[in-house]
Amino acid sequence: MQTCWLIPLILLTLITTSAADMPPAVHLMPWPQTLTIVPHSELLVQSSFTVGVGSPDPRLRRAVEIFLHDLRRHTGSTPLDFTILSDASTAQLRIESDRPSKEVVELGEDESYRLEITSSGAELKAPTTLGVMRGLETFLELVEITPQGFAVPAVTIADKPRFPWRGLMIDSGRHFMPVEVIKRNLDGMAAVKMNVFHWHLSDNQGFRVESKRFPKLQEMGSDGLYYTQEQVRDVISYARDRGIRVVPEFDMPGHSTAWFVGYPDLASAPGPYSIERKWGVFDPAMDPTRESTYKFLDEFVGEMAKLFPDQFFHIGGDEVNGKQWDANPNIQAFMRAHQLKDNADLQAYFNTRIQKIVAKHGKTMEGWDEILRPDLPKSIVIQSWRGQRSLADAAHQGYRGLLSSGYYLDLMQPAWQHYAVDPFSGGAEGLTEGEKQNILGGEACMWAEYVSPENIDSRIWPRAAAIAERLWSPREVTGVESMYARMGYLNKWLDAYGLTQNTNYPLMLERMTDGADISALRTLADLLEPVKGYAREKLAVSQPSSLTPLNRVVDAARPESAEARRFGDAVDQLIAGHLGPGTELQIRSRLLAWRDNDLELQPLLRNSALAEEVAPLSHDLSALAAAGLEALDYLDRGEKAPEAWKAEQLQLAERAIEPRAQLLLMVAGPVEKLIQLSAGETPKELALPKNASD
Amino acid sequence: MQTCWLIPLILLTLITTSAADMPPAVHLMPWPQTLTIVPHSELLVQSSFTVGVGSPDPRLRRAVEIFLHDLRRHTGSTPLDFTILSDASTAQLRIESDRPSKEVVELGEDESYRLEITSSGAELKAPTTLGVMRGLETFLELVEITPQGFAVPAVTIADKPRFPWRGLMIDSGRHFMPVEVIKRNLDGMAAVKMNVFHWHLSDNQGFRVESKRFPKLQEMGSDGLYYTQEQVRDVISYARDRGIRVVPEFDMPGHSTAWFVGYPDLASAPGPYSIERKWGVFDPAMDPTRESTYKFLDEFVGEMAKLFPDQFFHIGGDEVNGKQWDANPNIQAFMRAHQLKDNADLQAYFNTRIQKIVAKHGKTMEGWDEILRPDLPKSIVIQSWRGQRSLADAAHQGYRGLLSSGYYLDLMQPAWQHYAVDPFSGGAEGLTEGEKQNILGGEACMWAEYVSPENIDSRIWPRAAAIAERLWSPREVTGVESMYARMGYLNKWLDAYGLTQNTNYPLMLERMTDGADISALRTLADLLEPVKGYAREKLAVSQPSSLTPLNRVVDAARPESAEARRFGDAVDQLIAGHLGPGTELQIRSRLLAWRDNDLELQPLLRNSALAEEVAPLSHDLSALAAAGLEALDYLDRGEKAPEAWKAEQLQLAERAIEPRAQLLLMVAGPVEKLIQLSAGETPKELALPKNASD
Repeated sequence: MQTCWLIPLILLTLITTSAADMPPAVHLMPWPQTLTIVPHSELLVQSSFTVGVGSPDPRLRRAVEIFLHDLRRHTGSTPLDFTILSDASTAQLRIESDRPSKEVVELGEDESYRLEITSSGAELKAPTTLGVMRGLETFLELVEITPQGFAVPAVTIADKPRFPWRGLMIDSGRHFMPVEVIKRNLDGMAAVKMNVFHWHLSDNQGFRVESKRFPKLQEMGSDGLYYTQEQVRDVISYARDRGIRVVPEFDMPGHSTAWFVGYPDLASAPGPYSIERKWGVFDPAMDPTRESTYKFLDEFVGEMAKLFPDQFFHIGGDEVNGKQWDANPNIQAFMRAHQLKDNADLQAYFNTRIQKIVAKHGKTMEGWDEILRPDLPKSIVIQSWRGQRSLADAAHQGYRGLLSSGYYLDLMQPAWQHYAVDPFSGGAEGLTEGEKQNILGGEACMWAEYVSPENIDSRIWPRAAAIAERLWSPREVTGVESMYARMGYLNKWLDAYGLTQNTNYPLMLERMTDGADISALRTLADLLEPVKGYAREKLAVSQPSSLTPLNRVVDAARPESAEARRFGDAVDQLIAGHLGPGTELQIRSRLLAWRDNDLELQPLLRNSALAEEVAPLSHDLSALAAAGLEALDYLDRGEKAPEAWKAEQLQLAERAIEPRAQLLLMVAGPVEKLIQLSAGETPKELALPKNASD
Repeated sequence: MQTCWLIPLILLTLITTSAADMPPAVHLMPWPQTLTIVPHSELLVQSSFTVGVGSPDPRLRRAVEIFLHDLRRHTGSTPLDFTILSDASTAQLRIESDRPSKEVVELGEDESYRLEITSSGAELKAPTTLGVMRGLETFLELVEITPQGFAVPAVTIADKPRFPWRGLMIDSGRHFMPVEVIKRNLDGMAAVKMNVFHWHLSDNQGFRVESKRFPKLQEMGSDGLYYTQEQVRDVISYARDRGIRVVPEFDMPGHSTAWFVGYPDLASAPGPYSIERKWGVFDPAMDPTRESTYKFLDEFVGEMAKLFPDQFFHIGGDEVNGKQWDANPNIQAFMRAHQLKDNADLQAYFNTRIQKIVAKHGKTMEGWDEILRPDLPKSIVIQSWRGQRSLADAAHQGYRGLLSSGYYLDLMQPAWQHYAVDPFSGGAEGLTEGEKQNILGGEACMWAEYVSPENIDSRIWPRAAAIAERLWSPREVTGVESMYARMGYLNKWLDAYGLTQNTNYPLMLERMTDGADISALRTLADLLEPVKGYAREKLAVSQPSSLTPLNRVVDAARPESAEARRFGDAVDQLIAGHLGPGTELQIRSRLLAWRDNDLELQPLLRNSALAEEVAPLSHDLSALAAAGLEALDYLDRGEKAPEAWKAEQLQLAERAIEPRAQLLLMVAGPVEKLIQLSAGETPKELALPKNASD
């Protein structure tokens, strides 16, 4: 008999919430609402594994087929392994759901499920097919290799999301992302239980959807890089099969240069226009004073409202600089005639008109926080990018909203920073419980100035999983160490979906070395991160644009260096006196390898126009590592490092933290701590210089 | 002024033919017929790079678009980089071709081209669009990163293939390969200038093409794993755009169980039949005595002849064991009535009938060498798998033929062995020049008992490139060291086409370690090769079948360990007394790492049902490495190793070369040599044991 040892919920919460948390026994991400583990008990998942589906809902059947397909990919099984049974009672995994989900996934639909796994079988129950989908992802992620074969641990999980809106925005406007890129990212979203794909489809640099009513939009505004309506329908159906809503965004009245290439009359200044190549905020904006603009948008929104079945329709509405409006006498006259005292009033007028058009076509309008004005009806949804304050304001005024401030993946922040941002924190702390209901969740945003189909996955994954967990799991689940352990596991898990954040990294480095062994370049690149925030643009040698190839080290380097984080953790353990066995040896052996790396790398860099710019970083890594080794020597000898030596080494570290080639050498901080420690000082966390993080 | 230093052709030939050949300055594979390099001169390939195409041939235009797409992938450029100009004269790469290629690529079409690159521009001239395609692949492969950016060296190349038929066969019958697998392999074929994709579409284990006339073929014979006719047309068009012919094979009268599941009346014994799951030669065969068989095949071939536009139609014809014929009294009576004295006569009768059907539908029949009988017309083509002798016999009798014996990729032979097989060697040496004309070329064959979509690329690439070079390049190009150097480069180059031989390897290992760090497993796996020939089946613990998952170490391990080859080369240098600087250190550092690897790996293996079977190999690697280090110590001290020690270590090496888990530890041989050397003996090449290579 197996003893069933129920871990109390409180203990499990501790696992994921205490500062000194341990990597949990199961690798689930997002972490479920409640979980009970039966230790040393598991259900084998062999080729004879069967899934019983009693319900005749075709979407449920499809969800199980996708689950089995993924299970085969993960376990390397044959297409003939695993079977669906219509008689649920005899199967190893029995699925029951009370009712089908809505034909088009709706905001707030029940996504809860209950999963009970014993050594003899598993049961997944959910009120809706949507809940079954979430439960199947949990089951899948529980699959692990054991000495007996593939298996899932015996657990009982009762789970549901904290927020109903858990989104990922991908900007296909600035850099076009082919359908295969979108699909593999939808797979990744489903794996972490995200449920809204927000598709940014037009911007100054491109109009990306086929319009049959206004074909010059894509014909003249996309360089031929757009989605056909058939492809859009295919993506929507792919997303729906994974319980993901697709919300289109057509940014207006600003961010719209690409529209004007084919339809200059929409703009507030005469054309001709050409597709914008540079990044930033530009003057062109739709003319909000002409009826022809609304006639066009009425027909356009009508066409797109049919193409995109979701209830929500995102009109953008951000970053209008108003220069074209200021310069146009007709617009100025219109403003006077209508008592519109400034451009904000004019945009509000535009938004009111657009809201009516969107509503006429049966949709609910969504927009960035600039659109928030009391004259818009309370039905609209505000997406906050400017801060948690503006989300709280909207919620207080009775508008529904979602948080994106703090969730911008393009800013290259570490996962723990995103993870720490809670939709209920910051400005929202002061809201009433009722007002908090207006906060629907949040969205991770992947703006595309510096991503191509080749490296976009590495900017989204695995960090988006930290945001997905924030939006799904209980607020109390905040343990950073557990999060990183599970995220590291998930990161490899996602490989099976064809996501390329791991596989494309060595390929990008190989391009720079022309087929030579990349180990030395990889050793360096593993420790580099792109500069943070908007520093990349500011540090650019020549103006970046959509014509700039994204094939440099800064494009390959990960947003967050796992190697540097691990090294920093080891140094922190040493400082705290909590050294585990082998830790100092580990630190030393890393430092030795880094010290000697430059010698091997420099000849390679000299031959590569793509990689030569990291030569100073390679040199500094070597010098830093030598300094770190000397510091360890002082510490080991119990000797205080001399002042002159310390001053010199600190100078080196301060130089090494400076951005070069738009990259940061992430071990400068930990090495500086070693230097300080060896000189008898209390080590301090090194702040990134301002130009590296602005 | 740049000095134009023309390397005489003879020198270049030496580069690739002498035994002590050096890695060449350019990495082309296959090596061209003639090549002249202008040293220190190159043409930059920047984003402003233009290609001029004077001809209006749409296929030529399409070829250039594919070329630019590939160039963008290889250089990481944007979709807006590089431009096609209609005015050839002002472009940096000027393309001229005399005439379009045939609508359907034909056997023997002119594929020659001439490419001249100077620092100011390049010119590609070819009689046909097909030649332009080959020349564009050459140009592409010349692109390299330099201190100035991407560039191609200044060269003059005049090139054409040695043989007109340079094929790759993929068996989609035993394991179904989705269209994406086929397409990326067509990309690989184009890169090495192969021009025939031989598609093995039916076998006992599956019938893989949609027939509208006989839908039960795919409905009952494929487990739902088949190509729709639309997909087939898509693949053919994809291949045609790359100058590749597509020859379908429907194997008959044997290898045909899958047909009989839906159409049992075709068989020579009463049904019902089910899809065969095991591997091997089976009894079911078509009934060659009934007119209904020929009526069926007439209609079937008619349908497929329309679907596949190529001139050739492969009817298989191999491995009929005749048992169903022997057991069927009607067939026996028929044989007596028609004076068919044995089963070979009966199959010849069948082939004669089939040949007429194939010819009636406008096609030329092709078959495996079993079909060769004097009663068949000289128009047919023989594909020889049974040996070079049978190819020579066919050629001597006036039949055209191609060589596959020696080119079976599933036998896991090293590339140099395939490379050494020349269609004109062996039995063909004695043919007259006229008879040799009957030898059209050869085909690499990828039989699919032990490949899945996940690992098939790693069995085809890069070794198929050695066969491609054998069939394209001058016969004198035989230098193995140069071949390996260029093949190693090409192997990485192919990554850009989405070929997965490099990217899937770590992913397969990660599956076995459940997300743990794979370095220790990789260190071992890098030195392992699957057993050779048909040994895998013989060494199987339980009977392998199409239901066996291909997720073990033997499925991930490369057919040829580059790491073991490099180590063996270093040991050979040491033995020959030609040690370069650092070579002994390199040998020692590898041995040290291998000796210590087992300690790290064993705990990991104990937790993985997939990987635990390599534990003895890991243990032996450690012991071998320790022995190798001791041998080096004796050598360094100038001391002769004692007899007892030697005997013990040789015993260890003999054990370590034995197959375990269907794998071979490829460093056993080089270490044995070190042991012998240290004991004052002349080191001998270790032969694989018979059970490891049969």
